[in-house]
Amino acid sequence: MRTTTGWQSLDPAGNTLTRVTIERRDLRPDDIAVRIDYCGVCHSDLHRIHGMLGEKNLVPGHEATGVVVAVGQAVTGFAVGERVAIGTIIDSCGACAMCQAGQENYCYHRATTTYGGTDRVDGTVTKGAYSREYVLRATFAFHLPDGLDPAAAAPLMCAGASVWEPLRAAGIGPGSRVAVAGLGGLGHLAVKLAAALGAEVTVLSRSADKEADARELGASDLLVTTDDTQVAAARGRFDLILDVIPAEHDLSPLIAMLDLDGTLCVLGNPLLTGPRLLELATGRKKLTSSGTAGLRQTADMLEFCAAHGITADVETLPSSEVETALNRLAGGDVRYRLVLDMSDLDT
Amino acid sequence: MRTTTGWQSLDPAGNTLTRVTIERRDLRPDDIAVRIDYCGVCHSDLHRIHGMLGEKNLVPGHEATGVVVAVGQAVTGFAVGERVAIGTIIDSCGACAMCQAGQENYCYHRATTTYGGTDRVDGTVTKGAYSREYVLRATFAFHLPDGLDPAAAAPLMCAGASVWEPLRAAGIGPGSRVAVAGLGGLGHLAVKLAAALGAEVTVLSRSADKEADARELGASDLLVTTDDTQVAAARGRFDLILDVIPAEHDLSPLIAMLDLDGTLCVLGNPLLTGPRLLELATGRKKLTSSGTAGLRQTADMLEFCAAHGITADVETLPSSEVETALNRLAGGDVRYRLVLDMSDLDT
Repeated sequence: MRTTTGWQSLDPAGNTLTRVTIERRDLRPDDIAVRIDYCGVCHSDLHRIHGMLGEKNLVPGHEATGVVVAVGQAVTGFAVGERVAIGTIIDSCGACAMCQAGQENYCYHRATTTYGGTDRVDGTVTKGAYSREYVLRATFAFHLPDGLDPAAAAPLMCAGASVWEPLRAAGIGPGSRVAVAGLGGLGHLAVKLAAALGAEVTVLSRSADKEADARELGASDLLVTTDDTQVAAARGRFDLILDVIPAEHDLSPLIAMLDLDGTLCVLGNPLLTGPRLLELATGRKKLTSSGTAGLRQTADMLEFCAAHGITADVETLPSSEVETALNRLAGGDVRYRLVLDMSDLDT
Repeated sequence: MRTTTGWQSLDPAGNTLTRVTIERRDLRPDDIAVRIDYCGVCHSDLHRIHGMLGEKNLVPGHEATGVVVAVGQAVTGFAVGERVAIGTIIDSCGACAMCQAGQENYCYHRATTTYGGTDRVDGTVTKGAYSREYVLRATFAFHLPDGLDPAAAAPLMCAGASVWEPLRAAGIGPGSRVAVAGLGGLGHLAVKLAAALGAEVTVLSRSADKEADARELGASDLLVTTDDTQVAAARGRFDLILDVIPAEHDLSPLIAMLDLDGTLCVLGNPLLTGPRLLELATGRKKLTSSGTAGLRQTADMLEFCAAHGITADVETLPSSEVETALNRLAGGDVRYRLVLDMSDLDT
């Protein structure tokens, strides 16, 4: 066994994480070991620390960057010293139709999540990247392209991939009219990526406060969703609305802003409730959702970000401030992604 | 004023229709008058007779065929004696983005429905095609192509158009894997149209009883939805599922049968409830709905049906048996569409 250090949640009632020693497996032939340098703090970390999926004692963290420190004997794609990125899944069955289609995130036999999942070989619970070292199958690691700052690139691996895949599935490009509702970790990357893909991007926000920020990220407009006049004037305006609002809200005004055959892709809440189908019928609109990204799409996204100089807007904190980071995220005090620097785990 | 005879609902509690004299307007310059020969009996007739939209004293009927008996002075596209078809809408604003896109059915200022609508010129309530004569703007009438039996073609105008448009919107053609859930008026036409478009069509049914019928309509298979083994084996099997089940039911098994980026188009119930978005997220599936069809699509459908010899499978009853027809429809005793013959209104 290898040992490393990380941050574990021991109390689902709060954002209390404890520094613990973590065991990592000895490298299998197709494994690599990665020194984690940076790991983003994702809303789903909060949900899962608080027991949304009934789990306890999690080591969170699933958007990370680092450097290869060891490789298994059968690994050919990575060498010690190379920069790598790790996302939300670290294994899948590899055989089902979804895996064969490059959509390991939708594996019919459940992809193995980076933390809180079950290792397919030894059955242990996976522990995440709020830690100094991670061990995974090389197939599920990504080369971090040159030119991407490792701290600012870490959030690409969940927040970025999660918005990239639906943008690509919707065929977004020049001429597309895209709206992004919710300007947080996912939203700000959605604006950057959609704009870089050539779309005309509008940010939907409850107030005009974020207009300058929206434009700086690449949006051409901000629409104030509490202004009924603006909302009414936007009827039929968008081909795709990416809804990444992390709280319960009404989908009807968003559906009304879709054009014929337009798509509302809901990635935030309310994931468990539904819209009124009659609203979709009027204009033959589509409702969809999505869950992170497959390997091929993730690799494509990283290349695209490198070519366009896109990373997240991040604030980096020492990993010892993980509780502060989680509390700030819960309170909405983030612009736009907090990233933990894991180097303090060496001392 | 012109007068004609028709069937009016006076009692929302039951399917009691009374033969009444109906006034039709004198022809405006762009109007035609049509002798209605046949009118299909649609599920929505039942809903509206029973007050679903709060209406009373309706003359139903919105899928009809007949012959032109008079034309307004400005009409150039129709001549007396020509065969015509009338569908679910008979006017729209003509100016909004939806009308300009040929989707008058989604007119932002509400298309005028063939019955129970409000005439855009004189404000009267429109009375439907359960009557011997109908007057409408020529723009909203369709030439009935040669070779289509007028009784069997009548249901094309609502049941046919309603499934045609989502099939076309989904790009269905050779290689498409389409499932049709619910083998009634809409469903049997969906099977015929999808098969004629080149798709591989599967009927989803609660029992195997309809297998021979399904194959005769053009389906290559019938899947029994109460057989868990069959349902499980069909995971990810379809690109499009047209759900035309006219009763409340669970969407989850249907969503599970969609492939990556597949679409569930719900045209029956439950129009007011929603699915669980998490189910859509897994495989990035789309939920949509649709409401009849625009003028261009309707005309395209009629040409397509003429070229492929497609009409509805109908049973024709004298219009005096309208109550029997409605009761049989309510009880599910229809294969696959009842059509009223209006000629008895002359006597």
